[in-house]
This record gives sequence, C-alpha cells and structure tokens, in this order.
Amino acid sequence: MKTSRLEAFSDGVFAVAITLLVLEIHVPGGEDLWHDLKDEWPSFASFFVSFWVIGIIWVNHHGLLDHFKRTDRPVLYLNLLVLMTVVFIPFSTALMAEHLKSGADETVAALVYALAFLAMGIAFNLFWIYIVKHRRELGVEIPDEEIRTISVGFMIGSPIYGIAVIMAFVSPALVLIIISAVAVYYMLAGMRSPDL
Amino acid sequence: MKTSRLEAFSDGVFAVAITLLVLEIHVPGGEDLWHDLKDEWPSFASFFVSFWVIGIIWVNHHGLLDHFKRTDRPVLYLNLLVLMTVVFIPFSTALMAEHLKSGADETVAALVYALAFLAMGIAFNLFWIYIVKHRRELGVEIPDEEIRTISVGFMIGSPIYGIAVIMAFVSPALVLIIISAVAVYYMLAGMRSPDL
Amino acid sequence: MKTSRLEAFSDGVFAVAITLLVLEIHVPGGEDLWHDLKDEWPSFASFFVSFWVIGIIWVNHHGLLDHFKRTDRPVLYLNLLVLMTVVFIPFSTALMAEHLKSGADETVAALVYALAFLAMGIAFNLFWIYIVKHRRELGVEIPDEEIRTISVGFMIGSPIYGIAVIMAFVSPALVLIIISAVAVYYMLAGMRSPDL
Amino acid sequence: MKTSRLEAFSDGVFAVAITLLVLEIHVPGGEDLWHDLKDEWPSFASFFVSFWVIGIIWVNHHGLLDHFKRTDRPVLYLNLLVLMTVVFIPFSTALMAEHLKSGADETVAALVYALAFLAMGIAFNLFWIYIVKHRRELGVEIPDEEIRTISVGFMIGSPIYGIAVIMAFVSPALVLIIISAVAVYYMLAGMRSPDL
Repeated sequence: MKTSRLEAFSDGVFAVAITLLVLEIHVPGGEDLWHDLKDEWPSFASFFVSFWVIGIIWVNHHGLLDHFKRTDRPVLYLNLLVLMTVVFIPFSTALMAEHLKSGADETVAALVYALAFLAMGIAFNLFWIYIVKHRRELGVEIPDEEIRTISVGFMIGSPIYGIAVIMAFVSPALVLIIISAVAVYYMLAGMRSPDL
Repeated sequence: MKTSRLEAFSDGVFAVAITLLVLEIHVPGGEDLWHDLKDEWPSFASFFVSFWVIGIIWVNHHGLLDHFKRTDRPVLYLNLLVLMTVVFIPFSTALMAEHLKSGADETVAALVYALAFLAMGIAFNLFWIYIVKHRRELGVEIPDEEIRTISVGFMIGSPIYGIAVIMAFVSPALVLIIISAVAVYYMLAGMRSPDL
Repeated sequence: MKTSRLEAFSDGVFAVAITLLVLEIHVPGGEDLWHDLKDEWPSFASFFVSFWVIGIIWVNHHGLLDHFKRTDRPVLYLNLLVLMTVVFIPFSTALMAEHLKSGADETVAALVYALAFLAMGIAFNLFWIYIVKHRRELGVEIPDEEIRTISVGFMIGSPIYGIAVIMAFVSPALVLIIISAVAVYYMLAGMRSPDL
Repeated sequence: MKTSRLEAFSDGVFAVAITLLVLEIHVPGGEDLWHDLKDEWPSFASFFVSFWVIGIIWVNHHGLLDHFKRTDRPVLYLNLLVLMTVVFIPFSTALMAEHLKSGADETVAALVYALAFLAMGIAFNLFWIYIVKHRRELGVEIPDEEIRTISVGFMIGSPIYGIAVIMAFVSPALVLIIISAVAVYYMLAGMRSPDL
C-alpha cells in the first residue's frame, strides 16, 4: 500500500484542524474594542499555543512518515488515532479560552486541555512503538542506535503532559506554560536530530 | 484520466468532514463544567463513532482506489455520490447528539442518523459494483475470486445499516452500537484481507 | 511552473467549499423533529443542488487542467477568480435556503443565488478563453476541432445562468430547477466528450 | 527532507483559510433583504480584499517553494510562522467587517486588520531571508542578481503595510485601499518577474 494518500489525508486533517483554531476566537462586536480585545487574551494565548503544538506535531509526523516505504492497516488505524486526538485540540482549546475568560471552573477546563494533549502524546507513542516493532515490513531504514535516541525523545512528552494534568489543579496558566515548554523542547530537539 | 486528482479531492473532502465533526461539539460556558461535560456525553459518543466510521470509510476508499490505473466520468460521479453521503455525516451526527441530549424526539434523530449511514453504504456499493463491471477499462487487476470475497464484505454493510434504521424505533443507543459494530467489523475484516 | 500545486490548492478549495455546504444546514433542536425537518427542506434541496454543481465544476476543472503541461501567472490568477466564485456558493446557498424557509424576500435571495452561478460561469469562460489563446505556451495539445466543441459546451452555461437570473423574478423554485438542469447537462455532456 | 509534504500542508492551510473567509459573511434573515445586503457591504469588501491577498500570497509562496530541492527544520518552522499569520486573516477580516458595519471603534478594528497584514509581511520576509542565506543547502538555484530583484520586491510590502497601520488612525477605508494596492502591485510584479 502506498504512503502517498496516508500523507495527503493526514496533511488535510492537520491543515483543517490548525486553521479551525481561528474560528474559536470570538469576534467582539461591542463598543469598546480595546477592552474587548484585552478580555480576549486567553483566546489569543490558547490559539498561539495550540497552533504551534499542532504545527510541531505535524513536523514530527512528517519526519516519521518520510522513513516509510510501505504502510499496512494497523499503521492507518494508529494514524487515525493520532489524528482523532489532533482534531480534538480545537475543542479543548476553545473550552480552555472560554473558561480562562469567565474565570468559572478554570480547573476543569485546564484539566480537559491537558488531558487532550496527554491523549495525543500517548497516541503518538503507540504509533511510534508499532513502527519500531514492524520497521522491517514497513521499509523503515533507521539504525538501531538512532531509534533509541528518537524513542527517548518521543517518550519524554507523555510524562510531562501527565505533569500538566496534575498542575491543572494548581493553576491553568501553568498548564499553558508546560504545554508550550514541551513544544519548544520538540522544536529544539528536532533541529538537532532531523529524524525526530 | 489520471486518478491522482480524484484521490486528492476525495482525501480533502474526507479530511474536512472528519475534522468538522469537532465543530459540532458545543463548548459549554456555564458555571458547573463537570456537569456540563457530563451532559455533553452524547456529543462525545457521536463524535467518536462518526470519526471512526468516516476514518474506516476513508481506509476502504483508499484501498479501492489503489487498484485503479485510470478513471472515467461515471467513476467521478459515483465517487461524488459517496462523498455527498460522507459530507452529510457531520449533520446527522450533530442532530443525533442534540436530541440524545434533550431527549426530545430521539427516535426521529436516530432514524435520520441510521438512514445517513444506510445511504452511505448503498452509495459505496454502487461505486464498487460499477468498478467490478468496468474493471478492464479501469485497469483494475484483482483476481475474480478475491473480487467475490470483497463483494461479500461490502454487501454485508448495507443490510446491517438497514437493521439500524429499524432499531431506531426501539432505542437510539442501540443504533450507535450497531453502527459501531459495523465499523469494528470492517476494521477487522480489512486487517485480514488488505484489499477490502 | 509546475501544475501540481495549482491542482492541489484548487482541489483543497473545492473540497472545503463542498464540505462547508453541510454547515449551512441548521440542526433543529425543537420538540417536533419531523415537522422541523420538513421545514428544513429548502436547506436540503439547496445543499443537494449546490453539492452537485460544485462537484461537476470540479470534474470539469479537473478535465481542463489535465491538458496542461505548464502554468503561468495569468492562469493562476484566472483560476483564483474561478475559485472565488466557487467559495461564494456556500454563502448564496445559505441565503437561498434561509429565505425559501421564511418566504421573506425570496426574489432577492433567488437573484443573488442565480447571479453567483452566472459569475461562476463567466469566470470559468474567461479561464477557458485564456487557455485556448495561450494553448501553445501552456503545452495544451487538443485538436482545433475539439476545442470548438468544448468551447460551445462551456459557452452554453452562462446564457442559461443569465435566464435563471431573470427567472428569479418569476419563481425561486424555477431558479433551482434551471441550475439543476445545467448541472445535469454538463454531467451528460461530460460523459460523451471526456475532454469537456 | 522532501518538499512535497511541506507544499501539501501549506496548500491545505491556504485552501481552508481562503474558504473560511466566506463563513464570516453573515447570512441576513430579515424582511428587507436588499437593505440587509447593502448593510453587509463591508463584509463583501473585506471578503474580496482578503480573498485576493491570501490568493496572491499563495501564488508567491508557490513561486518560492518551486525553487527548493530540499527543506530543513528551520524552513518548516518559518513556514509555520507564515501560515499562522495567514490563518489569522479570516479573524481580522471579520473584525474589520463587523466594525465597519456598526461604525463603533472602526479605528481599532482597522489597526488590527493592518497589523495582521504587517505581521504576515514580516513573517514572509524572515522566510525569504533564511532561504537566501541557506540557498546552497536548500538547492535553490537562482542567480544572485535575480535574488536582489526579488528581495527588493518582497521588502517593499512590509513598509507599506506599516503605512497602512498608521493610516488606520486616519480612515479605515484607506487601510482597505492600501492593502488592495499592495495586492495589485504583487500581482503585476509577479506577471513581469515570474520568480517573484
């Protein structure tokens, strides 16, 4: 089975999800726009963080699929699992922004936001573990040592997202900071090791 | 006529339809978010089922088009028919979720939901029947025996969706379960016979 | 300049526009869903007509670009003009549906709906005229006689859309019927002459 | 790293962003549709300007990526920065339209609108500067003299967007005119120098 349509479909889903983020920013129609825009800061901050996280997941996904020569059904289904968690991000982002604005039940909103990223991290890891296990059938040619390095890189994300889940009970802003830090880490790690 | 743009356009429609599903989940803004999220469970359940059904249709569509060397106009139009039923799924999903939540007229909503999947199953079958009939012109090289196996696989879906339509009068939850069962069946069947 | 990205971008716009149509169908939340769905018939009818028109434009667009070996800037800009009229269709469709439902000012809504298709027909013709004029530079290899046949086919659309504009003052339903008839005509014409 | 997925993802984002613009035009449901549509003129004008600006950015982006043979991580991230500013345009367009309609706080809305284009211009310049600096690694083969011409072309945009930012304090309509003038300039410049 060719990988080209897997890439095209995934790129489409990533592109729609990352663009839909902007639909979640409410267009204020009131009299005092300065004030309204200042009140919208949680929307802008969440948009910014989620945009970069989805963008960086796309870069990593791109890097991963570049190694494939073939796909099989489990790869398609595990990829769908990753995409489902990506598609969920605009919802959890809007929920986070809405409740940071109103201040009501911020903890629950931050919890859902962090859990959504944790689910994404776990799905991405399952995807990667399957690929490593079946690398011969999929035509992946990465030396074993590098696979270990990449694995460590991918495995680090989920526990930190787990910490973000716990931090939701302390401060919603802290959750945004932790998620951003993971994004920056993957950006820098990807720069050094282009296969990540 | 090349098949590449048929694939690109179809992948685009699938990608947009599967991502739009999340737009139908209402972002609660109330005081008691735990409670609101619990009330939203029909949205989450419908999102989950519809996401996987669209995803699995995409996998099967992908598998089908991989066999083509050429397309003709009827293929393009029958493909449009399949896509129209796919594009309709976010609407029927939102309708189902809305009425499971309010409890009002659940039967009609479940009926529309099941009918939408029945229409999709029939459209997919028409597409497949045309392909089988014109497999020489389209450059499809599948042995006759395997075509029979695939045909049986595809033909099973529609009658079960038909049963889901009848079950709408009994219980809306049962409709969701039947639709999910068909999805799981196609997932497992696809694993064994990669051409399905 | 390669044509592949022109195709990819156009396919993306067509795919999003055709899928957005479903967002314009309002999800009824009332007590009597049968009644509500019956009241929504103009949405379903407009969705159906617009879906097929956009689909058939895509098929024709696909057929047209298959002949290119190269593109130039004017082709890109004329293509953008065609896409702008395509992107406008979900808006004019929603306007038509809304006013068929309420019965208020149906004439103006039908006028806008017909004008949107007229604009699309004219944009498509400008695109085609440019291609014919510069067919040597673009690497289009169609015999002159066939170009005349295709030209007649394309030229027929706009005057009929013009009639639809006038008929908006008589009956909005007639506008839907004329637009559908043009779509059916292009479908049948495309079947006979695969280059159209 | 191949450039094909960079193009596919970017084309997807451009296609979704340009199509979402139409979602920001409000469908009037009132009694006097002529009047309502006339009141919607700022929506139509903003839709028109933003559609062409995004379309022309896509053409330039397309022209730029055509020169690449390879990409690296910084290219992917700088491209994400460009895309983020593109994705933001439907929001700033809706804000502009909304406040031109109501007349309230037009200045702030025009300021945000102009700032969004300025950010886009700066992001595009950063992208271009990186490409010029690393043209050997990326396999870009443009003669030095032509690079200077293209650079001048790209550098002109940002200062004029800067002037639009200042003009927001004078007249919102003037902002629309300046942004349109830049678009027309890039269209004409692109016609003469196809590498721009």
